Amino acid sequence: MHYTPKTRRGEETKEKLLEAAERCFSEKGYFQTMISDITGLAETAPGTFYIYFEDKLSVFRYLMDDLSRRLRERVHAALERSSSRLDAEELGVREFFKFVAEHKGLYRIVWDAQFVDTEAFTAYYEGFAHAYQRRLGQAEAKGEVRDLDLVALSYSLIGIANFVALKYVIFEDGDVPESAIKAVVTLLSQGAILPPSPEGQSPRP
Amino acid sequence: MHYTPKTRRGEETKEKLLEAAERCFSEKGYFQTMISDITGLAETAPGTFYIYFEDKLSVFRYLMDDLSRRLRERVHAALERSSSRLDAEELGVREFFKFVAEHKGLYRIVWDAQFVDTEAFTAYYEGFAHAYQRRLGQAEAKGEVRDLDLVALSYSLIGIANFVALKYVIFEDGDVPESAIKAVVTLLSQGAILPPSPEGQSPRP
Repeated sequence: MHYTPKTRRGEETKEKLLEAAERCFSEKGYFQTMISDITGLAETAPGTFYIYFEDKLSVFRYLMDDLSRRLRERVHAALERSSSRLDAEELGVREFFKFVAEHKGLYRIVWDAQFVDTEAFTAYYEGFAHAYQRRLGQAEAKGEVRDLDLVALSYSLIGIANFVALKYVIFEDGDVPESAIKAVVTLLSQGAILPPSPEGQSPRP
Repeated sequence: MHYTPKTRRGEETKEKLLEAAERCFSEKGYFQTMISDITGLAETAPGTFYIYFEDKLSVFRYLMDDLSRRLRERVHAALERSSSRLDAEELGVREFFKFVAEHKGLYRIVWDAQFVDTEAFTAYYEGFAHAYQRRLGQAEAKGEVRDLDLVALSYSLIGIANFVALKYVIFEDGDVPESAIKAVVTLLSQGAILPPSPEGQSPRP
């Protein structure tokens, strides 16, 4: 349960608490975080927390929803500029990589949800996957997506974006190189694993 | 730090403790698990734990290594039967899906490692990715893999396997359907997102 602030100043305080919660949950994890850690980091009085959130679980759930909503809005805005489904995929992963760079605790928070709130964890990915399946279905009708199991395809695409960002943005703490974007776009549009070359023929250059 | 048992009975006890640790860490998470939960579930005396492991962190690290080693052995054995790189990819994901079904706590344990031991978390995926890059490089030399950034490609393939299993094996608690395997194999070999069809032409069936 969370409460909607009535004033601009209230909104700012709620936003400060949310940013502090994002940092605490991603640095220490949900179970090691105390509400006093959040209010301390947000520089608000300890009791202020309860004006906006009922308890620690409420702020965690609100944060998960908020991250999911922001990410979808960002990706959706990026897709507006796309000229085709393939173009949309490229713009979408680029925007996702940026979002992960701005929210480096994203995986820690979302994956911690497996223990905190299994339903919220499932809902997080199912929400993205359903939206993805809808868009892929529309593109399939236009001949821009192969006739394949769209549930499996949506999770494959989510997996690619998540693990490529995990490698470059989280493990390497850097940008995703253009060669990696090219690898992803080629995989999506043409595949990457080819049938074996006929015997006796020299390998492709 | 862990200790190698000298007797068959010692090996069995260590194995029982490890199975109990896997269950506790996946159900409750690392931080909520006490060593007494592990020894209780393994039905050993509380002090027995320390014959095999120095502390809770030691058994967690040992378990991560053990899961990683078992998974690699299983996938490696499956690959022995493959006739081409594409065939190897299919056999590899099928074996991975089976492994996840047998170790349903895998994601919980591995992703919890983000908080428990960041280095072990990174090493877990980097270990798979390096082995993958080596095999993809060999296949590229034979013309069975496109000339692409193999780091990005390895993480893309790991991401696909992980998220397709997350959907069907974890969220749905079932098997991965053949239509999903077909979607993955088609994506890998031919791609799934096509260039837009020329204007005026009707969509493909």
